[in-house]
Amino acid sequence: MDLTVSISVHKSVPFLSDKFDLATVYVSDAQYNRNIFFDTSPQAVRLYLLYNHWFMQMLVYVFIIINLALALFEDPAVVPLPIWATSTIEIICLSAFTVRMVHYAKVIPRDKFWKDPKNICIIVILSFIDLTIYGALKATGYFAIRWSRVLRPLLLVNVTEGRQLRRAFRSIRNALPQISYVFFLFMFSVLVFSLMALKLFGKRGLLTIDGSPYFTNYLDIVFDLYVLVTTANSPDVMMPAYNYSVFFTVFFILYIVINTYTFMSFFLAVVYNNYKKYLKEEVRQLVKARRSKMCRAFSLLQETRGEGGEPVVTQAKWNHLVKLVKPNISIAHRELLWSVLDDQNKGHIGKIAFVQLADLLSIQVITVKSQPHPIQICFPSVYNSSVSRFIRYMVRTRVFVYVYDLIILVNAVFIGLDEENPVVSNAEWDCVLYEILLSLSLHLNDQFFLFAAGGYTSRQILDIVFILRVVRLIRLVDSIKRFRAIINTLIKIGPTILTFGQLIVVVYYIFAMVGMELFKGKVQFFEPNSTSPDQEYCGNPLLKGTTFAKLNYCKNNFNNVVSSFIVLLELTVVNQCGFTAVTHVSARIFFVLFHIVVVIIIINIFVAFILEAFLVEYTFDKSDLQTSLEKKIEELEDGVDTGLVDAMESIDNELGPSETGKQKPSLMFKIASRRSRTVDGLLQRMFETDLRHEDFNEEEEPENINFSNPVFDSV
Amino acid sequence: MDLTVSISVHKSVPFLSDKFDLATVYVSDAQYNRNIFFDTSPQAVRLYLLYNHWFMQMLVYVFIIINLALALFEDPAVVPLPIWATSTIEIICLSAFTVRMVHYAKVIPRDKFWKDPKNICIIVILSFIDLTIYGALKATGYFAIRWSRVLRPLLLVNVTEGRQLRRAFRSIRNALPQISYVFFLFMFSVLVFSLMALKLFGKRGLLTIDGSPYFTNYLDIVFDLYVLVTTANSPDVMMPAYNYSVFFTVFFILYIVINTYTFMSFFLAVVYNNYKKYLKEEVRQLVKARRSKMCRAFSLLQETRGEGGEPVVTQAKWNHLVKLVKPNISIAHRELLWSVLDDQNKGHIGKIAFVQLADLLSIQVITVKSQPHPIQICFPSVYNSSVSRFIRYMVRTRVFVYVYDLIILVNAVFIGLDEENPVVSNAEWDCVLYEILLSLSLHLNDQFFLFAAGGYTSRQILDIVFILRVVRLIRLVDSIKRFRAIINTLIKIGPTILTFGQLIVVVYYIFAMVGMELFKGKVQFFEPNSTSPDQEYCGNPLLKGTTFAKLNYCKNNFNNVVSSFIVLLELTVVNQCGFTAVTHVSARIFFVLFHIVVVIIIINIFVAFILEAFLVEYTFDKSDLQTSLEKKIEELEDGVDTGLVDAMESIDNELGPSETGKQKPSLMFKIASRRSRTVDGLLQRMFETDLRHEDFNEEEEPENINFSNPVFDSV
Repeated sequence: MDLTVSISVHKSVPFLSDKFDLATVYVSDAQYNRNIFFDTSPQAVRLYLLYNHWFMQMLVYVFIIINLALALFEDPAVVPLPIWATSTIEIICLSAFTVRMVHYAKVIPRDKFWKDPKNICIIVILSFIDLTIYGALKATGYFAIRWSRVLRPLLLVNVTEGRQLRRAFRSIRNALPQISYVFFLFMFSVLVFSLMALKLFGKRGLLTIDGSPYFTNYLDIVFDLYVLVTTANSPDVMMPAYNYSVFFTVFFILYIVINTYTFMSFFLAVVYNNYKKYLKEEVRQLVKARRSKMCRAFSLLQETRGEGGEPVVTQAKWNHLVKLVKPNISIAHRELLWSVLDDQNKGHIGKIAFVQLADLLSIQVITVKSQPHPIQICFPSVYNSSVSRFIRYMVRTRVFVYVYDLIILVNAVFIGLDEENPVVSNAEWDCVLYEILLSLSLHLNDQFFLFAAGGYTSRQILDIVFILRVVRLIRLVDSIKRFRAIINTLIKIGPTILTFGQLIVVVYYIFAMVGMELFKGKVQFFEPNSTSPDQEYCGNPLLKGTTFAKLNYCKNNFNNVVSSFIVLLELTVVNQCGFTAVTHVSARIFFVLFHIVVVIIIINIFVAFILEAFLVEYTFDKSDLQTSLEKKIEELEDGVDTGLVDAMESIDNELGPSETGKQKPSLMFKIASRRSRTVDGLLQRMFETDLRHEDFNEEEEPENINFSNPVFDSV
Repeated sequence: MDLTVSISVHKSVPFLSDKFDLATVYVSDAQYNRNIFFDTSPQAVRLYLLYNHWFMQMLVYVFIIINLALALFEDPAVVPLPIWATSTIEIICLSAFTVRMVHYAKVIPRDKFWKDPKNICIIVILSFIDLTIYGALKATGYFAIRWSRVLRPLLLVNVTEGRQLRRAFRSIRNALPQISYVFFLFMFSVLVFSLMALKLFGKRGLLTIDGSPYFTNYLDIVFDLYVLVTTANSPDVMMPAYNYSVFFTVFFILYIVINTYTFMSFFLAVVYNNYKKYLKEEVRQLVKARRSKMCRAFSLLQETRGEGGEPVVTQAKWNHLVKLVKPNISIAHRELLWSVLDDQNKGHIGKIAFVQLADLLSIQVITVKSQPHPIQICFPSVYNSSVSRFIRYMVRTRVFVYVYDLIILVNAVFIGLDEENPVVSNAEWDCVLYEILLSLSLHLNDQFFLFAAGGYTSRQILDIVFILRVVRLIRLVDSIKRFRAIINTLIKIGPTILTFGQLIVVVYYIFAMVGMELFKGKVQFFEPNSTSPDQEYCGNPLLKGTTFAKLNYCKNNFNNVVSSFIVLLELTVVNQCGFTAVTHVSARIFFVLFHIVVVIIIINIFVAFILEAFLVEYTFDKSDLQTSLEKKIEELEDGVDTGLVDAMESIDNELGPSETGKQKPSLMFKIASRRSRTVDGLLQRMFETDLRHEDFNEEEEPENINFSNPVFDSV
C-alpha cells in the first residue's frame, strides 16, 4: 500500500515549483488538445496559465457573443439602439480582443506570433472593424454601409479557443479542390442540359403557370434547372413540358437521375472521402502532439530510480502534479487512476504509463456514495417491515419497470387524444396519480423528475408536465439493446453538432449581413390584425399576385438579423426564393452561392460526420484504456482489491466506517457512461485502431526538441 | 513457339466432345457468374447450353416486357384494347414462361427444382395471374379488379436471368432489420415532436393559409411533420407558428436538425453499412463459386504431364475450349490470352493459371488493325507531299486539339445566344464550316460524327446537329486528368443504374397498380385548348381552390400507367400529394409507404452504391490480371515479344506481310478501356484486395463435390 506516501505528499513537500508549473501546463495542454507554442520561461508559463484560465476564456466568448449580438441592435434592427451606443459596445469588445491579443503575444515567442496567420487575421479584422466604426461615426450614419460586419464571425474562428471550428474550416478547405472538380462537371452537365432544353422547348411557345414564356432564355433555364437539383421546384418546372407531351418527361428523368441523384451523391462521396482522409491525418497529428507534450512533462519530473536505471516518476510527484492539473479531483479518484497506471504496485511509473495520464483524466469518473433511503433513517421499523420489503422487492423486478413504462405510454396516447372529452381527462389524472405513487415507492434517483408542487389547476402547466414525462419514454426505448447503439450515436454527435452549429452561425452570419444589405425592407410583414391594403402583397407592389405573397411568406425577409437567419434556414432545407421579383435577377447569385456553400459543402460534411460516427459506433467498442479503467472499477466493486477500497474510505473522512458483511462498499465509482465524451475523443476513437500502434513506436524519437504546431498553424 | 500446336488444333482433333461441352458450360457459367445447379448428364448439358443461349434469354425478356407493357392497354389504358385481346396476349406470355419453366426443370435435378423458392414463386404467380384472367373473362370485365397485375413485375425478379436484381432485393432484405430499428426511433421522435406540437400550437387558434385550423389534430400533425422530413412542405408548415411568434421556430429548427438531417443520415449510414457488409459476402461467395467451377472444368481436361507430375491442361485442349466458349474470338486474341497465362512458354498451364481464364475472357480486348489513310491509297504523291506532312504534323499537336475544342466551346455559346440575330446565326455557320474542314483534315476516327448530308435548310435539324456536337465537349472535359476519375465512375455506374432501373420499375409498377386502383379517374386532365369549365379544378369539384388545381397539376394523376409512373417519379423527388383531397385521409398511407420504400430504402442504396463506387475508383487501380494483360500488350507494342507478333500476323491471313523497319506492328491490341466492365466485375473489384488472397488458399479444398448455389437460392 502506497497510502502513506500519498498522505505525506498531501503535506506539500517543497518541490521545484517552476518545474511543476511547466509540467502542469504540458499535461493540461495534452488533456485539452491545446497546441500553443508558448515560451517556457517561468514568467511566461505563469502568464500562460492565466491565459488558459477558464474565466479568461469565458470572458472572450462573452465578448464575442456580445459583438455578434450587436447585429440585433444595429440598423436594420430587431431592437434599434442609437449608433453611438452600438459603436461604444463594439469598441469595448474590440478593446477586450486587443487585450487578449497582447496577452497572447506575451505568452508565445515574438517570431511565432507574427508567423501565425490567425493572429494576423485577427489584427486585420480588428483594424477593419475599427476603421469602419470610425467611418460610420463620421458619416451621418445613413449612407455608411457597415460592410465590416461580415468579418465579425471570423473572430469566432480565429480566437485561440476556436480549435474545433478551425479544424472544420480546414476540413472544408482541404475538400475544396476535389469538390470543385465535381462541381465543374456538374455545372457543365447543367449547362449542356440547359442548352438541350432551350433547343427542345424554346420554340414551342409553351407558357408557365404565371403565363410567362417557358424555357426561352438560356440563363433562366440554367437557374431553373439548378433549382431542380435542390428539388425545390420539382413538378412545377416540368409541368408545361409534360402537359405538352409525355415524351418530354424523358429529358427531366434523365436530368434528375444524373444531376439530382448522381452528382449530389458524388458531392457526398468526395466530401466523405476527404473528410476521412484529412481528419485522420489531423487526429494523428493531434495524438502525436499530445504524446510529445506528455513526454516533455515526464522528462521534467523523471528520476532514475527503476530497476534497470530507467527514468520513472514517483507517486509523490505524480500526486502533486495531478492535484495541480485538476485541483478539485477527489483523493479516491486520484488513487483509482494511480492504481490503473501502477498496475504492479511499484510506487513509481515509467514513461508509457505516464503518457496515458492525459487520456485517463479525460474519462469522466463519478464517485457514487450510497445513501440510505430517507424512510430508512426516519422510520427504520417501517422500512424494514415485511410489507416494505415486499414493495422494494417488487419495485426492483423487471415486470414492474415494464408496467411503469406501459402507464407512461398509455398516458402519452391520452395526451394525443382529444382532451375536451371528460373521460380522457379523468384517465390522464389517473395516470398522474399512479405515477406519483410509483415514483415515491421507486425512489427513483434518475434524471426524470415530477412536478409535485401546487398550481395543478392550470391546464397549461399540466400539459407541460405531461410532455416532460413523455420524455421518460426515451428511457424506455433506450433500455432496448437494439436501439442503444443508435441512441448512443445520437448522443455522441451532440457535442459535435455544437461545432457544426458554430460553423453554421459563421456562414449564416456572413450571408445574413450580405442579405440584409441587399434585400432589407423589400418585403414587409404586417401583423395578422393589420388592416393595411399592402398586406396582401407584403408591402411591395412587385409581389402582387406572386406565389410568394399568396402563400403568406411575408415574414420570410431580410429585415433584421433574426428573420434573416430563419430565411437562411428555410433556404437550407429547400432553396426557394421569391427575392428576385423584388430586386434583380442577379439576386439569384446570392441564393445559388448559399446553396453551394451550405447544402453542397456544409450539410454534406455533417452527413459525412454522422455516417462515420455511426459506422464507428457499430464496429468499434471501448478503447483499451477505458477497458482497463473499467476493469479496475469492477474489481473494486467485487471487493477483489479491498485494500484499496479501505484505504480510500479511510482517506475520505466524511464517511463513517464501512458496512460489514457482504454488502457492497459504500463508495463506488462509475464511468460517466461512454456517452459524455469530447469531440476530440470521439474523433480520436474513430481512427483508434490505425493510430494505436504506430504512434507508440514513433514516440521513441528525441524528446526535448521543440515541436512546432503541426496542425493549427496552417489556417 | 507453340504456333504449330495451335494450328494443328485448328484442324479439330477428335476429343471427347461431351467432356468439352461440360467444361464449356463450366467456363461460361464462371464467366457470366451463372449459378445454376444443372444435371451433368450429356443430355442435360446440351439442354442447358440451349437454355443459356442468348436467343432464349432474349425471348424471355421480350415476353416479360410484353407482359409488363400490357398495363398500357388494360383499363385504365393509354391505348385501350378489348379485354379478350389483352387476355390472349397475357396467356401467350404465361405459356412462354411455362415453357421456359419446364425447360429449366429438365436441366436441373428434380429435388433442386422444388427446393428453389424462386421457381415456386414463379409457379404461384403464374397460377394466380392465370386465375385472375380467367375470373376477369368470366365476369363481364367491369367489376373485376385485376389485382394480380401487382405480381407481374415479380416475374422480372424471379427469372433465372434476374441475378443482379435478386441481389439488389436481397441487399434490401438484409438491411431491413437495421433500417427498421432506426425507423422505429425515427417514428418515435416524430410522434413525440407531434405531441409537443399539439400542446404548443393546438390551443392558440392559429390558421393555415387555407384558413383551416393549424396543428389541432394529432394525426394531421404527425403527417405534416413526416412530410417536413421530405422537405416538401418546408416553409409552409412553419409559417403560421412563425407569424405568431419568432420563438416557435426553435421547435422547427430542432425538429429539422434531428429528424430531417440526423435521422435521414442515419438511414443512409445503416444502408451503407449493410450494403458494404452483405455485398462483400455475396461477392466473396461469387468469386468462390466461380473458382470452383473453373476447377471443375480444369479437372475435366487435365492431364498429368508437368515436371512434378502435376495436372496440367495443354494448349491444344485449351484452344479448343476457348473456341467453344467464345466462338467468334480472333486467333490473335486467343494467342494473346494464352501468352498471358503461359508466361514461360511451356505449352501447358497449371490449375492456378487455368482458373484465371474466366476473368481474362471478361476483359474486353479490341484488335486494332492499322489501315492506311484513304488519300494515301488514292493519291500517294499528294499524301506524302511536304504540305500534307506539315498538316498531319500540325493536326497531331496538342495545340491543334485545343483550338478545335475551343471552336466547339464558342459554338456552344452561340447556340445559347439568341439565334434570331443574323450575326449570331452567321457565326454559327462559320463554326460549322471550320469544323467540317478540321474534321476532314483530322480524319477523326472517333465516335463523334458530323451530319454532312443535305437538308441543312431546316433550322431544327441544324439545332440537333449542334446539340450532338456539344456532346463533343464531354471529350474535351474527359481529356483533363482531374475529371477522368469522376467521369470514369459515372460511366462505370452506368450498367448498375440499369439494375437500379429494373428495381425502380418493379417497385413503381407495384405502386402504380395499387395507385391506379385507388385514384383512377379522380383527377382529370384537359387539353390546354379545351373549353370545359371543369378544367379549372381538374374535373373534380373537391379540388376547387386547392393549390393542386391552381398550380395546374391536373396531369399528375393515376389515370394510366404512364402518368402513374411520372407521378411516382415526382413523389420520389419531392413527396407532395394532393390526392387526399379527392379520396380519403387514409390515402396518405400510400404516400408515406411509397416514401419509405423508395426514398428511405432504394434511393439510399443507390447513394450507397455511388459512394462506394466513387471511393473505389479513387483508391484502387487496375486489377492484377488486367495489369499483366496490359503489360503483355505493351510488350507487343514495343516489339519485345516480336516472335508472338509475327506468329499472329502470319495466322491472320487477311493481312499482308508486316512492314519492315521501326514502324509499329500493323496488328495491335487495346484493352477496351477500363470502363466497359460488367456490374459483377465492378463489385468484385470493390472488394478485390480483401478477396484476392483468401480465396486462392481456400481453393485447395476437394474439387469434385457438388457445390450448392450459395447465393442465389435464398430469395
